[in-house]
Amino acid sequence: MDLKFLQELIMPAETKIVMIIMDGLGGLPLEPGGKTELETAVTPNLDALAALSALGLTVPVGPGITVESGPGHLGIFGYDPILYRIGRGVLEAVGLDLDLGPNDVAARGNYCSVDAAGVVMDRRAGRIPTDVSKELSKLLATRIEDVEFLVETVKEHRLAIIMRGPSLGSALTSSDPQKNGLPPLLVRALNPDSEKTARLVNQFVERARKVLVAHTPKQLANMILLRGFDKYPDLPTFPQVFGLRAAAIAVNPTYRGIAKLVGMQVLPVDGGLVTDEFTTLEKNWNEFDFFYLHVKNTDLAGEDGDFARKVSIIEEVDGLMPRLMALKPDVIIVSGDHSTPAVLKGHSWHPVPTLVYGKYVRADGIAEFGERACGRGSLGALPAKHIMPLALANAQRLAKYSA
Amino acid sequence: MDLKFLQELIMPAETKIVMIIMDGLGGLPLEPGGKTELETAVTPNLDALAALSALGLTVPVGPGITVESGPGHLGIFGYDPILYRIGRGVLEAVGLDLDLGPNDVAARGNYCSVDAAGVVMDRRAGRIPTDVSKELSKLLATRIEDVEFLVETVKEHRLAIIMRGPSLGSALTSSDPQKNGLPPLLVRALNPDSEKTARLVNQFVERARKVLVAHTPKQLANMILLRGFDKYPDLPTFPQVFGLRAAAIAVNPTYRGIAKLVGMQVLPVDGGLVTDEFTTLEKNWNEFDFFYLHVKNTDLAGEDGDFARKVSIIEEVDGLMPRLMALKPDVIIVSGDHSTPAVLKGHSWHPVPTLVYGKYVRADGIAEFGERACGRGSLGALPAKHIMPLALANAQRLAKYSA
Repeated sequence: MDLKFLQELIMPAETKIVMIIMDGLGGLPLEPGGKTELETAVTPNLDALAALSALGLTVPVGPGITVESGPGHLGIFGYDPILYRIGRGVLEAVGLDLDLGPNDVAARGNYCSVDAAGVVMDRRAGRIPTDVSKELSKLLATRIEDVEFLVETVKEHRLAIIMRGPSLGSALTSSDPQKNGLPPLLVRALNPDSEKTARLVNQFVERARKVLVAHTPKQLANMILLRGFDKYPDLPTFPQVFGLRAAAIAVNPTYRGIAKLVGMQVLPVDGGLVTDEFTTLEKNWNEFDFFYLHVKNTDLAGEDGDFARKVSIIEEVDGLMPRLMALKPDVIIVSGDHSTPAVLKGHSWHPVPTLVYGKYVRADGIAEFGERACGRGSLGALPAKHIMPLALANAQRLAKYSA
Repeated sequence: MDLKFLQELIMPAETKIVMIIMDGLGGLPLEPGGKTELETAVTPNLDALAALSALGLTVPVGPGITVESGPGHLGIFGYDPILYRIGRGVLEAVGLDLDLGPNDVAARGNYCSVDAAGVVMDRRAGRIPTDVSKELSKLLATRIEDVEFLVETVKEHRLAIIMRGPSLGSALTSSDPQKNGLPPLLVRALNPDSEKTARLVNQFVERARKVLVAHTPKQLANMILLRGFDKYPDLPTFPQVFGLRAAAIAVNPTYRGIAKLVGMQVLPVDGGLVTDEFTTLEKNWNEFDFFYLHVKNTDLAGEDGDFARKVSIIEEVDGLMPRLMALKPDVIIVSGDHSTPAVLKGHSWHPVPTLVYGKYVRADGIAEFGERACGRGSLGALPAKHIMPLALANAQRLAKYSA
């Protein structure tokens, strides 16, 4: 069942769908037999909603596969994340509203700390302050041969890099060794069209290393890592495929970027809190059929290994649910793009607790929103990409299939 | 796992499989938290059978997809309903035992009521009596250029139409707007081979409109709607693929048609009641390996929004189960082709409660046949097409797979 099959069944309706994505929602207990972050959180509103919902565990890409945010979001947005791919560099660039041309190549960068031997000690350079990062990024922007290198700080150590010039390819390996204790890797071309780009990228990285060391010899950010090389992708959009006027409510540029790439209108959020995102939802309620609302801090708490903070952020979202219910959406999805268990301090492969609520949902009658409760739900363990068709069906936006 | 893979594993056996399909079996509660039709029905025999069965919820085509009877049945018969498609017109024609040649194009027709502006007021023309419908159908049969139009009443407002002549194609859009309040659509060709057919079909519809209005100006049936254009399909059959001498016990022509297309022998039923179908089963017990027994009225009650009637039909089937058990089938499947919740008054996307009983089934020990009970079953939420391999395995008709 591909997007084209679905597209042919789409019919117009007046219904509204809201998708709340708590980033990295799925978790693990601190000790065997214990409760996960979500199970620990006191969530009376989500539990009440679960009682009226169909529950399941979504698998972002496949069993055992840990995903980054890009494929995690593509899955829950209804796209097959193996078929449709967006390099992380493109997500960062589009998220920052940078002008990404069809022949440009974008990359995601990190400032990092290396020791005297060149081994990576901290892949995030101690999460350096954003203002320091921005100052350094100005020094890195350059031109090598006929290619322009644009460098923009996303936030803290995170960079968006755009290469602009003739004959660039994006089939490149990463320079990021993905863990501390290893040296950065040379970037290699995976096809002949990308060989020039690989050569120039390696020159760019070497220049960046010298510039950073020369700038302030003892600072944390003394090297960069690059990954996620890609060009602007050609994705079927939410209006085209699903017939939805879709809006995105997200603070973080990565998620604003991916939403824009799938054809959502990215709404301004006045302030950076989840409550501000709910205010944006309320203000724009009449203008759209579909709202994606993204909560970032669950993932950050998980990555920091902070179980208690992840619990409290889930409770914060739960406390805001009455404001969503007051809008009387026809269909609500609460899920995540992947799991980020605090005990793993990173993304993981575990399926993600998910509820689908609506007037015509066949509710499981399980009054609890948690990993094990969802494991008992009637949706079973299902590919994340199946959630959008279920949401559309429950919103009565899919016609009957006949031959 | 396609049919060819399965076919290579088939081995002969003396076992018997019975598949009871209650049309539109799956339902919804009248109120949130309430019971569905099946959960409401008092079904001691099905509950006892469930206790000895593996339970699950079958998904006819894919999550969120609502199906017509054709793809719904193909799925539960083991065929991928996206890969194998049969136009509704073919189902109706074959179900009526009309002679459908390899170059003929069949369509499903409805008598409908339109207002003075040509807008459809009732897609079923008040379900006009079958004898009136038959009389009108005689008036519609005609010849346009070198193409013969045969028109047969199936029942009430429902028609089977066959076009016979040179150079006909079946890649045609529907004229049925699928809901009241819209005008009929012009039929369009989807490829050049079907352009002649589209042109003649539109002429045929225009002529039918004039004939019907002229006949009795104030009657309900003053227009027709056409859909489901197709030619005779080339399906692998039950004897070929599954090695089964298969019989169909169904009263309604559509289901007799689809059974015939997959190579079942369609048995005569003396009377129109479910009890008569069970009598046919008993009479023919020694002659076949596989029996498909179809119960139509669950779907009709659902379509009429009659929750109580759907409950009572399920109870009627339950009451007949001892007659089935007395035959000692090796494997029993009880399921539906799709859901038809009374609250939706139509087919829906909800997965279908299903039980697989047999001596070697690993029973779940859940002594209840209902949506939520099946949602807890070990089969989980599974594609309907997976039921046939399970039935064959439990009937010890599948050899071990080795490379």
